[in-house]
Amino acid sequence: MSKVAVLLAPGFEEIEAVSVIDVLRRGGIEVLLAGLEADSRGAVAGAHGLTVIADCQLEELAGDDLAMVVYPGGLPGATNLAASEEAKLLARMVSEKGGWIAAICAAPIVLDAAGILENVEYTCYPSFEKKISTGKYTGSRVQVCGKIITACGPGAALDFAFALLQALGKQKEAERSRQEMLL
Amino acid sequence: MSKVAVLLAPGFEEIEAVSVIDVLRRGGIEVLLAGLEADSRGAVAGAHGLTVIADCQLEELAGDDLAMVVYPGGLPGATNLAASEEAKLLARMVSEKGGWIAAICAAPIVLDAAGILENVEYTCYPSFEKKISTGKYTGSRVQVCGKIITACGPGAALDFAFALLQALGKQKEAERSRQEMLL
Repeated sequence: MSKVAVLLAPGFEEIEAVSVIDVLRRGGIEVLLAGLEADSRGAVAGAHGLTVIADCQLEELAGDDLAMVVYPGGLPGATNLAASEEAKLLARMVSEKGGWIAAICAAPIVLDAAGILENVEYTCYPSFEKKISTGKYTGSRVQVCGKIITACGPGAALDFAFALLQALGKQKEAERSRQEMLL
Repeated sequence: MSKVAVLLAPGFEEIEAVSVIDVLRRGGIEVLLAGLEADSRGAVAGAHGLTVIADCQLEELAGDDLAMVVYPGGLPGATNLAASEEAKLLARMVSEKGGWIAAICAAPIVLDAAGILENVEYTCYPSFEKKISTGKYTGSRVQVCGKIITACGPGAALDFAFALLQALGKQKEAERSRQEMLL
């Protein structure tokens, strides 16, 4: 079974993170919420004050068994992730092992900082491409290039989530969930 | 300033609850997450295992100063709310004082059980209208009738959230957020 980690840093964008978690779990994927700087309850607060309890700390993730790592956007969530050596190391490790890396909104800056955007077509929240020195910005709402998936922002969160589910080989589950969710 | 309570019962649908919380807070609304059967950390788990820390317990809500109460769907979230005397009493109290009542997906069953759907045009998750004995089912994606707003399911969660923001008089903020969120 494919295991996916969603990285939650203080200031993550709630709709972006939760759309991915909800849709992947509906599709039968095992999703681990990994907290960066989680408090004593294991909790991390989002950009709009939603406080979510993570399943583990980012440092506890081995990375070996991950089919995908997801970097939600939001500020300062994305900048917190970009400043985290563990978050960048995980992107490099999973990418080198042939896993999927996904980032939305401001979070493609993390992939750039991790050094895995070289020659990759990507999208991000408009204007954040100016902070990204590698890769080729396409301006699409959702962009798949090799095994890197990026999206533009909260308004594309559901499309992003379904692109991830399909990348994990769950086409049938994606179609069923779209119908059940009345999309 | 308008204060809004979002009721979180075990098994709430995550995208429905979080879309409302995120969009209303972006629009400058004070949003209180009120937990039903929250654990010792004040946490409530959603239908797909997302565990959120509530701001208060449902019993602590006075209701006097609420401009709106929101009932997310999800199972068993909505049936838990429909079985809660406090949740139904709050709907009646806020409704009688001229406040807004909003419910999405399976949650219009709570409004029916509370006795506030009489002669009201409403929508809900398809087939749940069979469990609702009062009101008039329209089958719309989002339905506004008097001061009761209902919606059909997770796929309409963002439209529902923006309908609530506009009902609270935040047209300008809604337009700005739609642009910022790339909708």
